[in-house]
Amino acid sequence: MIRKICVAITARPSYSRIRSVLSAIAAHPDLELQLVVTASALLDRYGNAVDVIEREGFRVDRRIYNILEGENLVTSAKSTGFGLAEMATTLADLKPDAMVTVADRFETIANAVAAAFLNIPLVHVQGGEVTGSIDEKVRHAVTKLADLHLVASERAAERVIRMGERPETVFVTGCPSIDVAKAAIDDPRLPDDLFARYGGVGPVFDLAGGYLVVMQHPVTTEYGAARDQIEETLWAVADLGLPTLWFWPNVDAGADAVSKGIRIFREHHALPAVHFFKNMPPEQFIRLCYHARAIIGNSSVAIRECAYLGVPAVNIGSRQSGRDRAANVVDVSHHRDAIKDAIHRQWAAGRLAPDLLYGDGESAGRIAGILASVPLTFEKRLCY
Amino acid sequence: MIRKICVAITARPSYSRIRSVLSAIAAHPDLELQLVVTASALLDRYGNAVDVIEREGFRVDRRIYNILEGENLVTSAKSTGFGLAEMATTLADLKPDAMVTVADRFETIANAVAAAFLNIPLVHVQGGEVTGSIDEKVRHAVTKLADLHLVASERAAERVIRMGERPETVFVTGCPSIDVAKAAIDDPRLPDDLFARYGGVGPVFDLAGGYLVVMQHPVTTEYGAARDQIEETLWAVADLGLPTLWFWPNVDAGADAVSKGIRIFREHHALPAVHFFKNMPPEQFIRLCYHARAIIGNSSVAIRECAYLGVPAVNIGSRQSGRDRAANVVDVSHHRDAIKDAIHRQWAAGRLAPDLLYGDGESAGRIAGILASVPLTFEKRLCY
Amino acid sequence: MIRKICVAITARPSYSRIRSVLSAIAAHPDLELQLVVTASALLDRYGNAVDVIEREGFRVDRRIYNILEGENLVTSAKSTGFGLAEMATTLADLKPDAMVTVADRFETIANAVAAAFLNIPLVHVQGGEVTGSIDEKVRHAVTKLADLHLVASERAAERVIRMGERPETVFVTGCPSIDVAKAAIDDPRLPDDLFARYGGVGPVFDLAGGYLVVMQHPVTTEYGAARDQIEETLWAVADLGLPTLWFWPNVDAGADAVSKGIRIFREHHALPAVHFFKNMPPEQFIRLCYHARAIIGNSSVAIRECAYLGVPAVNIGSRQSGRDRAANVVDVSHHRDAIKDAIHRQWAAGRLAPDLLYGDGESAGRIAGILASVPLTFEKRLCY
Amino acid sequence: MIRKICVAITARPSYSRIRSVLSAIAAHPDLELQLVVTASALLDRYGNAVDVIEREGFRVDRRIYNILEGENLVTSAKSTGFGLAEMATTLADLKPDAMVTVADRFETIANAVAAAFLNIPLVHVQGGEVTGSIDEKVRHAVTKLADLHLVASERAAERVIRMGERPETVFVTGCPSIDVAKAAIDDPRLPDDLFARYGGVGPVFDLAGGYLVVMQHPVTTEYGAARDQIEETLWAVADLGLPTLWFWPNVDAGADAVSKGIRIFREHHALPAVHFFKNMPPEQFIRLCYHARAIIGNSSVAIRECAYLGVPAVNIGSRQSGRDRAANVVDVSHHRDAIKDAIHRQWAAGRLAPDLLYGDGESAGRIAGILASVPLTFEKRLCY
Repeated sequence: MIRKICVAITARPSYSRIRSVLSAIAAHPDLELQLVVTASALLDRYGNAVDVIEREGFRVDRRIYNILEGENLVTSAKSTGFGLAEMATTLADLKPDAMVTVADRFETIANAVAAAFLNIPLVHVQGGEVTGSIDEKVRHAVTKLADLHLVASERAAERVIRMGERPETVFVTGCPSIDVAKAAIDDPRLPDDLFARYGGVGPVFDLAGGYLVVMQHPVTTEYGAARDQIEETLWAVADLGLPTLWFWPNVDAGADAVSKGIRIFREHHALPAVHFFKNMPPEQFIRLCYHARAIIGNSSVAIRECAYLGVPAVNIGSRQSGRDRAANVVDVSHHRDAIKDAIHRQWAAGRLAPDLLYGDGESAGRIAGILASVPLTFEKRLCY
Repeated sequence: MIRKICVAITARPSYSRIRSVLSAIAAHPDLELQLVVTASALLDRYGNAVDVIEREGFRVDRRIYNILEGENLVTSAKSTGFGLAEMATTLADLKPDAMVTVADRFETIANAVAAAFLNIPLVHVQGGEVTGSIDEKVRHAVTKLADLHLVASERAAERVIRMGERPETVFVTGCPSIDVAKAAIDDPRLPDDLFARYGGVGPVFDLAGGYLVVMQHPVTTEYGAARDQIEETLWAVADLGLPTLWFWPNVDAGADAVSKGIRIFREHHALPAVHFFKNMPPEQFIRLCYHARAIIGNSSVAIRECAYLGVPAVNIGSRQSGRDRAANVVDVSHHRDAIKDAIHRQWAAGRLAPDLLYGDGESAGRIAGILASVPLTFEKRLCY
Repeated sequence: MIRKICVAITARPSYSRIRSVLSAIAAHPDLELQLVVTASALLDRYGNAVDVIEREGFRVDRRIYNILEGENLVTSAKSTGFGLAEMATTLADLKPDAMVTVADRFETIANAVAAAFLNIPLVHVQGGEVTGSIDEKVRHAVTKLADLHLVASERAAERVIRMGERPETVFVTGCPSIDVAKAAIDDPRLPDDLFARYGGVGPVFDLAGGYLVVMQHPVTTEYGAARDQIEETLWAVADLGLPTLWFWPNVDAGADAVSKGIRIFREHHALPAVHFFKNMPPEQFIRLCYHARAIIGNSSVAIRECAYLGVPAVNIGSRQSGRDRAANVVDVSHHRDAIKDAIHRQWAAGRLAPDLLYGDGESAGRIAGILASVPLTFEKRLCY
Repeated sequence: MIRKICVAITARPSYSRIRSVLSAIAAHPDLELQLVVTASALLDRYGNAVDVIEREGFRVDRRIYNILEGENLVTSAKSTGFGLAEMATTLADLKPDAMVTVADRFETIANAVAAAFLNIPLVHVQGGEVTGSIDEKVRHAVTKLADLHLVASERAAERVIRMGERPETVFVTGCPSIDVAKAAIDDPRLPDDLFARYGGVGPVFDLAGGYLVVMQHPVTTEYGAARDQIEETLWAVADLGLPTLWFWPNVDAGADAVSKGIRIFREHHALPAVHFFKNMPPEQFIRLCYHARAIIGNSSVAIRECAYLGVPAVNIGSRQSGRDRAANVVDVSHHRDAIKDAIHRQWAAGRLAPDLLYGDGESAGRIAGILASVPLTFEKRLCY
């Protein structure tokens, strides 16, 4: 019997993380892939992941627009509610044998609730980690709704089990985002026409001279501070004047503040060495990280993929606090001088040896194998 | 500073459980009560709890209709989504200092997500218990979204802490439903005109001769079996012919099947000793349980309040499985003969001494005191 | 080029009206039928039209649950809003070349707005009529959103054109409900096992002795009066004691009151000659009307189909006021004596000759032909 | 008896149009104002009308976020559905005696349906006009849902009556937007610090030397063409090089395309004489129009307010086609050369005498008087 596996993609970075798994599911003889694209993955100003997905050869079964304008706490909650309602209709129509949800973005709890309420076995990828922000609540709530846990590391597995999940439902697969990282550096060449191909605004420069990658998201539980926080990073980068590739943030409460912070800073201050990108295929983004002297901001890529890549990272503020770290990460607070110092040191540090903390680059095959073979159930009970 | 405490009431039985707390909040000098009534608590055919609430002197700040017709798995999920969306608007308008959510009904996860996403400290009453059905997933997911845990028993507290919650956020208050039970049996007199006052259909009889109370809900994870399951109980009760007060089920996926099962059975079989009620004030219902020879079905009242009341209970099927039990409970499967035997034995058993497993009847004051005094935060992290 | 024609079915009676058109579209070589079933057409307690639809051989492309419980004015509006939202997703997915909406039930405005906003040509069947209630507002608002008008009569066509629609977009096709009526009386035999087959409650009697058909809906703009209004009819029917087949009302604000009125009346008063049905295939219902001595209540069937069938009708209250009438109708107010008198007279009157006021029974073919051939546009402007 | 009048504000320009009426209602002894702010009126990137409203002294009773991101046809329809659902809850809570809706933006049909379904008398301001785009369908559908029609001109009144509305429900009040225009030119002084005060990007110049005002919205029924259409206007303005104040478009399907068109044009072409504004208080905007040599684009301000102001206008494309015009308007198609020519001529033409086609600047008082005195009903029927 072919098992129908429904995967919900809600954002550009989530697609990046799960893409190798999509390919492995599609290629597996006993699995059939159903793809539902929702939330910011449908939106032009967050990188239009849906177009990337189709261009890369996947069929999109359904699209659900559910992100309300406003980018504040109220609209995050309402968007999740509307997403839940329509995901229920969609799952009732697609009738998958299991639903896969990835990580911990706020809107993913909609997918988890929909599957749980429809008695569809729920598979959670990347549970058991510890971070800051609303992601922390969402991630563990999804664990309690999920029936199968495919985690990145032994420590994550241990946490999921301590939360009361049955050990036989927890599998250490490694994080599929490391698969992308591995594939990218198996062929680390960047396209010659990188700037032309991916547009953006700002100067074009020779990447061979060394450069920074910056990606900083708002922290939803520090909602009001997003504007100040981005400005500290902007000042640090402006002062250093190093060649920099800056990527726009995800849609989240506060993203408007971050975007506005960047726009207004640009209007009043020269950033002669900074090029801003809106989106890029994940493997290109990873290659750019791989060749970077350092990655700056609060993206999980700095903690996870860059552990494997060995790229020095400056992690700013609380968004990734609690997350397990390899030796590539230096943590700093939201102060421009601290940020500058840390960038300075990491720029000089040089690439480290790979750390397999988050996976070995082979998780997709493991995940597809598990999805094809383990018992799929939707009944569970606290294990103590 | 007065703290505004928002309580969401989503169903008749939830109101029953939390009512003593509503009074204690309203009476506390440092607290202000905000009451939002949603879901089946607004619906005539589930007892119109909102009318009871107002009649009992509480002001209802907002009403949110969100239950879709259909009573199946899809509509449960969609109703929860629409409830979440509007609860977000409501909380943004009411701006409470904390949100209280009770127990584990499916639609309560909407309230929990709304509060969590709006950075409103979430207080969960009755976490840490273990049962069957979708309630199990909802309850523990709400625990992971909640910031403060007011639990019924030491064992519940221990479970919540093992799930990774900080011990200083977990308080054993006892279950407020036991407050209602205590108040009811402090004055155990039933109204003389009980049948006239609360209507319903079926024969009127003298309660002094002994009677059964029956309340059986559908089990959402055994969705398709609801009709068969109710019929077994109907056959058992019909065969025994004992005077019986039967209460209609809550709105849940499957409730239509239960209701239909009852209606069709009544059309084809005589139930000369059974009176059916739709709703009743909680204290009257508890008094009826207190004077009953036994309580039959799968309601949590049989496990919780009846532990305190000492009333023998026949618990049928899986809905309450995993829940801690006192000595008053006999468990049986969905077979008419097993049910008949168990009722027979419990009818003969006589009332037991009170067991304080779920509380001592004084939890409301404790809860109000905690809400007025503990630090209210919305940042948390897994404790291991 | 095959044109994809999407038809939305929102209720049992709407299905009855449009069924011949569905068959004609499905059979037309240049048309492809897309069927979306929503609202009360999905609900068991309103006749579960979706099961009938599938049993009769149509494929249902999508199901949208959108009716909120409560059956009041607020839930009618909210249900329409949620229906609109999901219909938009559905139409974006199905990409029809035209959308067909039928008549004037409140929830149909959701389908009309969805199509209009998505630039999908909107075809309105049964515009240009005049009635009471919220239907009146909905019907003409849909006319102003529609691009093509397929009306029942010359008078309806004239009204649509006077409202500013371009004459070349208005076609007198006759009402497809008359097609059902014609087909039914082309073979007017009722099944021998009618009562066994369609269940319901109440006595079984020989239809050959003559009988009444009753169907009375709530009037949304007289919301609070629904209970009183149904009681007057119940008293009249009870007093007369004639053999009666009574059909439950549609889901509408007030339907709970009507249903409750009937239930409570039955508990307190004998209705020894009345059999209550919940649902029935449209052609059987029409045959029952055809053989009836009179049809009582406020259903449009009494005004429309029964004009063609020549069956005497007693139309009660304002719900059908304004609608064009043939000679078969006697109008009365909500007073039991007036109702009794009118029933008495109509019982004696005998069947009339067919009146083609609402169609000749051949509209389905005309409609399919028009859908296959006329220009489909979504740009329009007031014609004066 | 004080009548509670609920006004829904859904966008910055709608607020501008109805503001004098809000003041007149608030000041009327027999009326009480209830203000609900929804849709793009809550959004920063469309001018954050809600902040303006509060700054100008009005109390906002409720806020409803309902605009989905995506700015395409699907999201317009879904946003309207979600807006309808929550407006129903809001109206059930506020219980107004009448609801006022303004003009014809797509999302206003949500307010009209909510009021109609809740049996709240619906007052439509600015019905009976003729234009292009989806506005045309929405406007006349709202007329058919409305109970009271307060129109701008005799011709509009005539059209509303021809559509079947009862003449005694139609009042020629003039358009309240002309009140704003009159007030603005009663004191036509612009602030000295205009550029500093209202920000925006682009050069600062001396307004006394003459300037153009540009405002061009997407046309929803020509959705795909929005990008090309804005570019033609950009080319024309760029070529002429005249001092220009350019205002960003409303949120509508296609607005993203317009915004993107402007942004990309700016990145590739110099616009040394163009200053871009995001928002401005309506009276300042009108003063700017009053002093302009010409107004360019497809805003209704060019047709309506500028008729009264006597400001020459170049109206581009189909968005305003059908609307009654004074002598100040020249119509052109979306071709840069045609646009250039027309601007050239209008720049030279000079200000015309006021034309009272859309009102005399005294409508607010008339409207408040009517709201306080006419019978408010919600029952209606086609008048032929």
